[in-house]
Amino acid sequence: MKKVKVGIVGLGRLGCQHAENIAFRIPNCELTAVCSVVEDEVKEVQEKWGIPYSYTNYDEMLKNKELDAIFIASPSGFHCEQITKALQAGFHVFSEKPLGLYLEEALEVQKVVDAHLDKVFMLGFMRRYDKSYAAAKQKIDNGDIGDPILIRCYGLDPASQMDNFLKFAKANYSGGLFLDMSIHDLDLARWYMATEAQEVWAIGGGYARPEFEEIQDAETGVAMVRFENNAIGIFVAGRNCAHGYHIETEIIGTKGSIRIGTLPERNQIVLLQENGAVKECYDGFLERFEQAYLSEVEEFINCILEKRKPAVTVQDGVESTKLGYACKKSFETRQLVNLQDEQLVTN
Amino acid sequence: MKKVKVGIVGLGRLGCQHAENIAFRIPNCELTAVCSVVEDEVKEVQEKWGIPYSYTNYDEMLKNKELDAIFIASPSGFHCEQITKALQAGFHVFSEKPLGLYLEEALEVQKVVDAHLDKVFMLGFMRRYDKSYAAAKQKIDNGDIGDPILIRCYGLDPASQMDNFLKFAKANYSGGLFLDMSIHDLDLARWYMATEAQEVWAIGGGYARPEFEEIQDAETGVAMVRFENNAIGIFVAGRNCAHGYHIETEIIGTKGSIRIGTLPERNQIVLLQENGAVKECYDGFLERFEQAYLSEVEEFINCILEKRKPAVTVQDGVESTKLGYACKKSFETRQLVNLQDEQLVTN
Amino acid sequence: MKKVKVGIVGLGRLGCQHAENIAFRIPNCELTAVCSVVEDEVKEVQEKWGIPYSYTNYDEMLKNKELDAIFIASPSGFHCEQITKALQAGFHVFSEKPLGLYLEEALEVQKVVDAHLDKVFMLGFMRRYDKSYAAAKQKIDNGDIGDPILIRCYGLDPASQMDNFLKFAKANYSGGLFLDMSIHDLDLARWYMATEAQEVWAIGGGYARPEFEEIQDAETGVAMVRFENNAIGIFVAGRNCAHGYHIETEIIGTKGSIRIGTLPERNQIVLLQENGAVKECYDGFLERFEQAYLSEVEEFINCILEKRKPAVTVQDGVESTKLGYACKKSFETRQLVNLQDEQLVTN
Amino acid sequence: MKKVKVGIVGLGRLGCQHAENIAFRIPNCELTAVCSVVEDEVKEVQEKWGIPYSYTNYDEMLKNKELDAIFIASPSGFHCEQITKALQAGFHVFSEKPLGLYLEEALEVQKVVDAHLDKVFMLGFMRRYDKSYAAAKQKIDNGDIGDPILIRCYGLDPASQMDNFLKFAKANYSGGLFLDMSIHDLDLARWYMATEAQEVWAIGGGYARPEFEEIQDAETGVAMVRFENNAIGIFVAGRNCAHGYHIETEIIGTKGSIRIGTLPERNQIVLLQENGAVKECYDGFLERFEQAYLSEVEEFINCILEKRKPAVTVQDGVESTKLGYACKKSFETRQLVNLQDEQLVTN
Repeated sequence: MKKVKVGIVGLGRLGCQHAENIAFRIPNCELTAVCSVVEDEVKEVQEKWGIPYSYTNYDEMLKNKELDAIFIASPSGFHCEQITKALQAGFHVFSEKPLGLYLEEALEVQKVVDAHLDKVFMLGFMRRYDKSYAAAKQKIDNGDIGDPILIRCYGLDPASQMDNFLKFAKANYSGGLFLDMSIHDLDLARWYMATEAQEVWAIGGGYARPEFEEIQDAETGVAMVRFENNAIGIFVAGRNCAHGYHIETEIIGTKGSIRIGTLPERNQIVLLQENGAVKECYDGFLERFEQAYLSEVEEFINCILEKRKPAVTVQDGVESTKLGYACKKSFETRQLVNLQDEQLVTN
Repeated sequence: MKKVKVGIVGLGRLGCQHAENIAFRIPNCELTAVCSVVEDEVKEVQEKWGIPYSYTNYDEMLKNKELDAIFIASPSGFHCEQITKALQAGFHVFSEKPLGLYLEEALEVQKVVDAHLDKVFMLGFMRRYDKSYAAAKQKIDNGDIGDPILIRCYGLDPASQMDNFLKFAKANYSGGLFLDMSIHDLDLARWYMATEAQEVWAIGGGYARPEFEEIQDAETGVAMVRFENNAIGIFVAGRNCAHGYHIETEIIGTKGSIRIGTLPERNQIVLLQENGAVKECYDGFLERFEQAYLSEVEEFINCILEKRKPAVTVQDGVESTKLGYACKKSFETRQLVNLQDEQLVTN
Repeated sequence: MKKVKVGIVGLGRLGCQHAENIAFRIPNCELTAVCSVVEDEVKEVQEKWGIPYSYTNYDEMLKNKELDAIFIASPSGFHCEQITKALQAGFHVFSEKPLGLYLEEALEVQKVVDAHLDKVFMLGFMRRYDKSYAAAKQKIDNGDIGDPILIRCYGLDPASQMDNFLKFAKANYSGGLFLDMSIHDLDLARWYMATEAQEVWAIGGGYARPEFEEIQDAETGVAMVRFENNAIGIFVAGRNCAHGYHIETEIIGTKGSIRIGTLPERNQIVLLQENGAVKECYDGFLERFEQAYLSEVEEFINCILEKRKPAVTVQDGVESTKLGYACKKSFETRQLVNLQDEQLVTN
Repeated sequence: MKKVKVGIVGLGRLGCQHAENIAFRIPNCELTAVCSVVEDEVKEVQEKWGIPYSYTNYDEMLKNKELDAIFIASPSGFHCEQITKALQAGFHVFSEKPLGLYLEEALEVQKVVDAHLDKVFMLGFMRRYDKSYAAAKQKIDNGDIGDPILIRCYGLDPASQMDNFLKFAKANYSGGLFLDMSIHDLDLARWYMATEAQEVWAIGGGYARPEFEEIQDAETGVAMVRFENNAIGIFVAGRNCAHGYHIETEIIGTKGSIRIGTLPERNQIVLLQENGAVKECYDGFLERFEQAYLSEVEEFINCILEKRKPAVTVQDGVESTKLGYACKKSFETRQLVNLQDEQLVTN
């Protein structure tokens, strides 16, 4: 069987994890090229794993016609441009989330993707490929909980990463709490509830760290959404989770409920000591979604080999971004935002 | 030691439970009189437990000067009038929640209570006396979770009671989902967060049972509140909980979180069978709050004997009602409601 | 309705709890007399709760013909004698476990009880009246797990009490780990499995505290039992439980399993902090079995009033003691003990 | 970096999983040859995954000098012979558990392994590489629970597989319940407790399926072990677990306890429905130990590349087998078995 030859751009923490997976843990693909603007980084990876090609210039990598697919794990601000170039150069494309940092560019990418329907384009909404999230989807589709009427999502980053984030966010445009942190939850909500958002109210603050307010962002916040079918969404996002990385989702239906990740227990251990029964929690996304990061890429490769499309579409990226922007606007204006009324395209 | 002599009005399901507790399970008190408009009911209880006095007329009971305290467990619509009369007749008073169905009458009662400061007045916010809720309060006051910044409350009645409720609500004014169901949660939020509500947006629907919409009520709904100190409240209320009676509370602080009742497990049993590991859930409030219903009355009796005031005040009843009305108004108008701007006194 | 008048002997920690329950929390009974060899203790209780009679001499109390029932909460070494005297004096009798410290005296008491069948005799195997244990019994009787084939019981006292116990055990005959600690579990096993023990092997040691070995006892140990119907019992007992008071039971059947108290969570709180998700554990038997201690006495009083017999019989006390002695013997001799072959009556 | 070239023998369910892992999911190795006596099986795998060499004769595969390592996943009865031949032919060897079905052959293999110390030999005790089991080991080594004094292990196969097993066991020598099912637990006990077994008593029966007794085996059983340092082991094994595949381990220490897999929850989902809160359970070993099956082979490959030895030694295989035989003998003779006294080598 032919192996899919992949070139990856971006060798940060998540990028390296993806690169290692592509090189060693995904059937029927090969890591053929690595690209990063950091020359040392790219050399180190190339040598360590014996990768045939390395680049410090993305456009150069796109000239390599041995490659079948481009995997984008660069900083968010580059996604739209790199997706566009890769598709136009004739490659299948996988891009990490988000589709883009601005709604305009997301809408532009959508057009490019739609113009290259012979190519596989997939967005890194890896949670859909997590075994628990996928099993929940099946149960909902089976009708196990009746009609879903309420979704509650928690996306909380560990407090230990807060300083790093603040440093980054003071120097860069992160998109803000809802666009940056809730984007996976917004996608999950649309996936499970099968409806689009209509109205949103978002509130929050810089509770432990007022510096968040200086950059017009929130340390912790909640967006409540009314969907077109009158279902309800509650999206809690935060960067100050004392116990670690907390991803939790609940879907309430007319006949039952499903909870995923009620407590973010990192493994099957309970430690019983003087202070009680203790379960350690996940320390970050790489630990929590290790399996999902593998499975999504397996699906991408299989889609290429089997000439079919992944379930995650560019439309999913656009709609999640649109809703994320509505949350952001509501938080900033302290008003209810109606997604139909509003012109969300900003700058 | 002198025993406190109690007369109770209202012998419905909860009233009977209270009556039995007062008669047999609370130290230092006696059930001396029972009152109900249903003559058979009152006779049955009097004979079964050997109660000295029985009445079908509340005003007659208030003439009995052997009594020290009046316990009000009648339908919500009578609370305000009966509290007022009992205080004016010189009795200590315990009233089941809510203080009143309308904000105006709650405010009137507040004046009466304030005019009788020599009497113990206590409102049945029994959750504060539940061991888990009380332990959570202590942990918060100890600073175990830092400053509380977000509270999430679930108050879901069992689906099995939905038909009964609909029958009742079609014939009576229940107050609506938020005033009737969330009132305990609104009190808990004020208690734990130590701040008052400022803005609220409430949404919901008659998802499984559109009849709720015919009576301008919601089967399931959520109110999101911004408090004066910018803290966040999420109040999920519903009448269609497939797995039973679900009361759950989470308080997120700047240094940790507390969850109470994550899953409403009715006892310590896990049943392991073909379909997996199963925990049965509570079937209703009497089962879930059995201990709290006892402890709150113990506290009421002790306050009388020790001449001190309970921690739950009439002000707590007024403020919770005010917030409940704001939720109701937001749900009905589909708008953000600001508690400072708004004139909530309605009708 | 006539109230049952109770005289209690023994006012230690558990005795006082029983006395308070009888005085204030059990319908249809009165605490009419209190007895203890400690004069101050007995006076204090009499005055605090206004008890009509007080005694420092048990025989004197038995002369009080106003009493209907005697409640025995004295040290284990007095149970047999006091049961015998009370029955012979014409009273109904409730005795705390164990029936006796020696098998011979237990067998003697059995004869006395059998000679007074018009009197209610009940032994304090309170776990049978705990809601979770009672619900488990119902499920087993319903056939929910098929035929029970294995029972595993944990009975672990908190490490914080170990010093106290060692001091007591150096000066008194406690019965040893299995007779003293496992007796409730041995009763539960016979109750759930509906069979008697045939063979036992018990091992253990003074792991953290070699002093246990000096008094021929074990700090922690396990007895494995083969029952007459070939079912299996595993009884873990210990006095050094770091996380508190740990009572756990599992019954495996041919079609499913039941677990009771998988983790000894003291309330419904989860505390989420830097070290993870923490559940506090029970600190002792009074906390864990508060409801059961009430319910068993309620049953005792109801049996007297309704002229029926409790489900716990003197035979249950005898058989549990016999099995406890077999465990003790196996532990001491390091051999398999067969309950049919062996002459267990010792001394 | 050089890739380790592996030839696998045995392409049953677990063999195929290993083959797929070696081919696609383990860094720095290649699946170069497949071998099975079933010609169709071997052809199918070769073609599907493009494997260079295929064999129906094991001795032929050993002649292929391109290979670096032999991976043995054949039926248990072949392990000893195949290990011996592979080592003697100069290959590194990984063998699935058990080392052998008879103690004599295990002892023979030990000699062969000891005579080829330049080769990596590893036994498939994969649980040691499961993240939860490995984290528990670290905590114990850190002293988090003090000195380990008791280990309790559950190893229960799903009831759904019982018919298959009975069919197999009637036609083949399985080793019996303890050798076949508890072998992983016996290894874990030795690993965590750092001591060897001294005495054992094992009991059990054919509870739901008397056919087990016809083949001198048990459907469910327990072995209780006293270790040389007086620590205690409890090993529950069974083939009739209604809720699925149940692997649970507890280690009690002088200062705390660790539990691994308290309930065998297959994923992070809780389903809340009319019957309560339900967690689905694992359906088998491939699902439960997916990660461990990968990690153990990763370790095997890394040991070869880095010229070091795995922590699992042939001695571990021999000692576990010896203890398994002692359990078997105790079960069959209904007697306590002392591992020092007894001549366990049988047949």
